Amino acid sequence: MKEISILGSTGSIGTQALDVIRKTKEYKVIALTTNINIDLLEKQALEFKPKLVTVMDQKKSIILRDRLKGYNIKVASGDEGLIEAATLEDTKVVINSVVGMIGLIPTLEAIKAGKKIALANKETLVTAGEIVMREALKHKTEILPVDSEHSAIFQCLKSGNQNEISRLILTASGGPFRGKKTNDLLNIKVEDALKHPNWEMGRKITIDSATLMNKGLEIIEAKWLFDVEIDKIDAVVHPQSIIHSMVEFVDGSIIAHMGVPDMRIPIQYALSHPIRTKNEINKLDFNTLKELTFERADIETFPCLDLAYKAINAGGSMPAVLNASNEVAVELFLNNKISFLKIPEIISNVMDLHRNILNPTLDDILESDNWARETAMHKTCL
Amino acid sequence: MKEISILGSTGSIGTQALDVIRKTKEYKVIALTTNINIDLLEKQALEFKPKLVTVMDQKKSIILRDRLKGYNIKVASGDEGLIEAATLEDTKVVINSVVGMIGLIPTLEAIKAGKKIALANKETLVTAGEIVMREALKHKTEILPVDSEHSAIFQCLKSGNQNEISRLILTASGGPFRGKKTNDLLNIKVEDALKHPNWEMGRKITIDSATLMNKGLEIIEAKWLFDVEIDKIDAVVHPQSIIHSMVEFVDGSIIAHMGVPDMRIPIQYALSHPIRTKNEINKLDFNTLKELTFERADIETFPCLDLAYKAINAGGSMPAVLNASNEVAVELFLNNKISFLKIPEIISNVMDLHRNILNPTLDDILESDNWARETAMHKTCL
Repeated sequence: MKEISILGSTGSIGTQALDVIRKTKEYKVIALTTNINIDLLEKQALEFKPKLVTVMDQKKSIILRDRLKGYNIKVASGDEGLIEAATLEDTKVVINSVVGMIGLIPTLEAIKAGKKIALANKETLVTAGEIVMREALKHKTEILPVDSEHSAIFQCLKSGNQNEISRLILTASGGPFRGKKTNDLLNIKVEDALKHPNWEMGRKITIDSATLMNKGLEIIEAKWLFDVEIDKIDAVVHPQSIIHSMVEFVDGSIIAHMGVPDMRIPIQYALSHPIRTKNEINKLDFNTLKELTFERADIETFPCLDLAYKAINAGGSMPAVLNASNEVAVELFLNNKISFLKIPEIISNVMDLHRNILNPTLDDILESDNWARETAMHKTCL
Repeated sequence: MKEISILGSTGSIGTQALDVIRKTKEYKVIALTTNINIDLLEKQALEFKPKLVTVMDQKKSIILRDRLKGYNIKVASGDEGLIEAATLEDTKVVINSVVGMIGLIPTLEAIKAGKKIALANKETLVTAGEIVMREALKHKTEILPVDSEHSAIFQCLKSGNQNEISRLILTASGGPFRGKKTNDLLNIKVEDALKHPNWEMGRKITIDSATLMNKGLEIIEAKWLFDVEIDKIDAVVHPQSIIHSMVEFVDGSIIAHMGVPDMRIPIQYALSHPIRTKNEINKLDFNTLKELTFERADIETFPCLDLAYKAINAGGSMPAVLNASNEVAVELFLNNKISFLKIPEIISNVMDLHRNILNPTLDDILESDNWARETAMHKTCL
């Protein structure tokens, strides 16, 4: 039995991780956390009997504490609760599937506590990749990717050595607006942007897929996770989401990971690694597959991908600023405060205003993040 | 410098192997052999300065010996010469790219002499897979595949363990007659059958691709090479030949090998393994790739694939009989002695007449091979 803490257990990745755990019976759940969804967290607590559950929202945590009275389950709250869940003594693996920059500190604390990290929170590496990877090296902690693209690359890399990598090729579905031009995107509604063609995902990441920012964040994440220079990381649009990503080696061999688009496969691999275990997920059927297609990403219509390359090429605190202003812009769009096309505009403006800090400390990154959030908010009032 | 002998250096694989060697400058050619093409062998000998060249045809070998007088290159002939080339003391790696059953004995002798084998001669494993793999195990000899499909699988397998394999999926281009029905194949000419859509290959293998027998032979080869049960080995038609084959693991992950269809990539990998080395071969460009498609193999129109499954399921000497009768039938077709549709008919008839020998010795296999050749020849006169 492997002991597991799941940060963000009521979200899309969290619930699918619990589904994997439910079916394999090889894991023991030690801690579960949520932002505000205490109804679902209560159900999960009663099913999996963790030692600790934690709720970001303090008022909600009090309600849940009341409901779980007599079950011998500790109920914590806030940042402290999240960190406790990430560092609990019994825990061997921390699945970090919280959404946004908030995942960074718990990841760092889990690394320092020697936990293996199954990382779905891409903001952790986007904002502070250099610091996180340095800490992981120092504490000899493994960081296993949960994102389908990074899991794919992680698996493909086993076919060669680090110095034989010529390119990482991340596939992108292109999102719900693939093929559209800027003029077609003037009056996009939130519900249209939330219709992802292939994957069932949370709201934030679904909007990021629609703007192509998701691919931009993944490219930055890949740079840190696999220690590959940014000019060796490409994105290609592959609308069917069957090839989850690829590695090109120096001899011209491309190793690709394929399968049905089901997040439980990379989640399970992150938990079972270094071995693979069976599951009941439908297998890919080539007789019904018909065709796989590829297109160049349209960065004129979807400038977020380009903004991400600019941010990581600038380095320093700029990727944290990219991420923070994107988080704000996406939230504003989801709340119908701004139009879809405003998202890249806000990010670009905030990046232009940022005085980049090279070799930033963790504090520099947290401050840049704060500054970017405030600036993004302010910008939208212009 | 790795010392190399190439059996069949004047054929398609042989000349491409020499091209790889010419460009990498990391290998020393020790021996080269041909069936009858002494003009090309002479050129190769003068360029690469091997210690030994050998010609299957004895008369031709005498002519070549005369031409190479004064160059300090030994000229041998016949089966003996081939075996000498396969076992020469200095040789570290033997590339076996001779065509047909004739490659079996030199492979076995090279194994016994402790040489690493880069195997392009699929008949070696089709006819005597069990014996060959047993000898390789006994002499701790590595057999590295050169066929693009097997090289692909070999590379994909690095992403999991042996007991995690759920399926090997060999891709087939479908050959020049893909989509045609039996009636369309009544008056096929040799030159039509020799027009392979994607790969530049020798005449025998090109006809085998047109009948789908090539895929059948490869499936049998894969069973022995990778120690996987035959019901876990599938073929799927993929007309673009960009995905060279795949491995499905128990968790639903499919690892695929992709690249431009250029045999120098798998040849180079067999030589450079366990590392990968750079080359000047064009890389796959996803911007011009457009689409990859998949179809079920049409075994009604192309029964050879089915005959191969029948042969390996019968086991014993039957695969040798399949192979021998196919070699005869293809040769007869290439010489305009029989029609294209007669090829599977002859093979099927010979298999029906064969009294299968289970657990055959090498002599049993050689005798079954002889018997099948005579029977196939005789059958065509009916």
